[in-house]
Amino acid sequence: MAVYTEVADEELEAFVADYDIGGVTACKGIAEGVENSNYLLQTTTGSYILTLYERRVAEGDLPFFLGLMEHLAAKGVPCPTPVHGRDGKALRRIANRPAAIITFLQGMWPRRIQPHHCGLLGAAMAGMHLAGVDFELRRENALSVAGWRPLFAACADRADEVRKGLAREIEAELAHLEAHWPSGLPDGVIHADLFPDNVFFLGDALSGLIDYYFACNDFFAYDLAICLNAWCFETDGSFNITKARQMLSAYRKIRPFSDSELEALPLLARGSALRFLLTRLHDWLHHPEGALVKPHDPLEYVHKLRFHQSVKGPGEYGLD
Amino acid sequence: MAVYTEVADEELEAFVADYDIGGVTACKGIAEGVENSNYLLQTTTGSYILTLYERRVAEGDLPFFLGLMEHLAAKGVPCPTPVHGRDGKALRRIANRPAAIITFLQGMWPRRIQPHHCGLLGAAMAGMHLAGVDFELRRENALSVAGWRPLFAACADRADEVRKGLAREIEAELAHLEAHWPSGLPDGVIHADLFPDNVFFLGDALSGLIDYYFACNDFFAYDLAICLNAWCFETDGSFNITKARQMLSAYRKIRPFSDSELEALPLLARGSALRFLLTRLHDWLHHPEGALVKPHDPLEYVHKLRFHQSVKGPGEYGLD
Repeated sequence: MAVYTEVADEELEAFVADYDIGGVTACKGIAEGVENSNYLLQTTTGSYILTLYERRVAEGDLPFFLGLMEHLAAKGVPCPTPVHGRDGKALRRIANRPAAIITFLQGMWPRRIQPHHCGLLGAAMAGMHLAGVDFELRRENALSVAGWRPLFAACADRADEVRKGLAREIEAELAHLEAHWPSGLPDGVIHADLFPDNVFFLGDALSGLIDYYFACNDFFAYDLAICLNAWCFETDGSFNITKARQMLSAYRKIRPFSDSELEALPLLARGSALRFLLTRLHDWLHHPEGALVKPHDPLEYVHKLRFHQSVKGPGEYGLD
Repeated sequence: MAVYTEVADEELEAFVADYDIGGVTACKGIAEGVENSNYLLQTTTGSYILTLYERRVAEGDLPFFLGLMEHLAAKGVPCPTPVHGRDGKALRRIANRPAAIITFLQGMWPRRIQPHHCGLLGAAMAGMHLAGVDFELRRENALSVAGWRPLFAACADRADEVRKGLAREIEAELAHLEAHWPSGLPDGVIHADLFPDNVFFLGDALSGLIDYYFACNDFFAYDLAICLNAWCFETDGSFNITKARQMLSAYRKIRPFSDSELEALPLLARGSALRFLLTRLHDWLHHPEGALVKPHDPLEYVHKLRFHQSVKGPGEYGLD
């Protein structure tokens, strides 16, 4: 839940007057997203999302994020697109923060994931990957393999507070991934955070892929690896091969992946599990007293990591 | 900020199907209200608020609250009104909690209060008091003078953690108020929590009085006393007599108040200050680790209480 910055009514009215979207009729802080402050803005022309970028998002990355949304939306990806002000600019300022108004997407994210959600997700992700191929800006993935050791260094000495032996387990996995991380796989712009709360469905259709604030250039298959972790485990910790199969086979119909990508999937899934384990561990150990967002349990990702360590090949994800 | 209960998408769709308001197109938790979980629900017919009543609201009081909103809205008070299901019932259940869908009001609450807001508030409050006169249900004010001593008992031994001498100061004030609390003043249904975030404005008009979950039967003038505290102090702690004068004189044009009400105002304002001091103190000392809502500073109300103790008569509120 996140509204970190209050926007005064008269300040909002002045801000919206710089757009061609009518007058403000309502504006409510919404309890979604953890990095930024988000408002559901209603005007005489419709609904929008007003996002204020808080300090966890680097201001220099905003042209990449906003440009990407615009690029993808123009290619038919169901994603929000920034609204431009009368002066042509989409990135503006309010309440002393960078801010943008983006279009509102209908739909709800699925609280209980069904296999058909995973199929729709796979197809939409593949379409997004293809649509991003000619996007001209680049952003390195700061949370890929090279970024994990510094992250671990910031919490290694306290990791065993969460579970005895955890520091040693992470150290071993990190060494393995650093030694074996693949190179040369097909790459491009990935979302890098396609958790269920970033995917909207309406009726039987996928209606939105939102929240591009971790998007970056990396292996396409790494996006799939993230989604294997985020979508294909049950709450009891068991891996649901039906969901994985639906996701991967729907993806493959839109963007066929190579054998090397398929072979790399277990390792990428381990990497993705470690990435979320490390960021959750970091937030768990460092979250400030009275924070508005409850940190996620890092141990969920220890469990997922161990599953992928046990995987003998991509067949265990439902594909041969 | 408050979304305590997550509602699953399919559960929401089934719930909304019992109403005649179209199909769900979006539903976002909103960061307003501290007692309940609130969602901005969008359907093919428009915007609504879905409220799930959490444990701080007594289920037995809900017919009073919902009935009151409906009664007031029917009389033209700008307040949300419950939507009835196809079976005629407005109070229903979702996610194992009592819940209701209420109409959505346009407007925003004022972050920076101007004197004209106070004038509009005074007039709307008087209209609400008159409109409630023939409402047939009753609800005692559990947070009036008889409720303060038990509340104080629950935090007296720790009050001095907040400020040295606070327990003794509260004890003296409580004894004074118990001995001098008025009786026989004009009474009826009051809102009892008309803080700025419960009052919406749109352009130059007041567009909504929301959040009736503290409404009860008590002196009309006690509602005014609450608003003197909530609307007429500046952030530097100074009392703004212009705001008070606008509020009281606009109120008086709609519902003229008696001399006895006017004379009682300083004491009622002291009582209202003590009431919010006590509930804030209680929440400050008892709020759970990791709570989603940050408690308000109780000392703000110590300051307000002392101001009203110094008041010689209602003339200091801008009226003679």
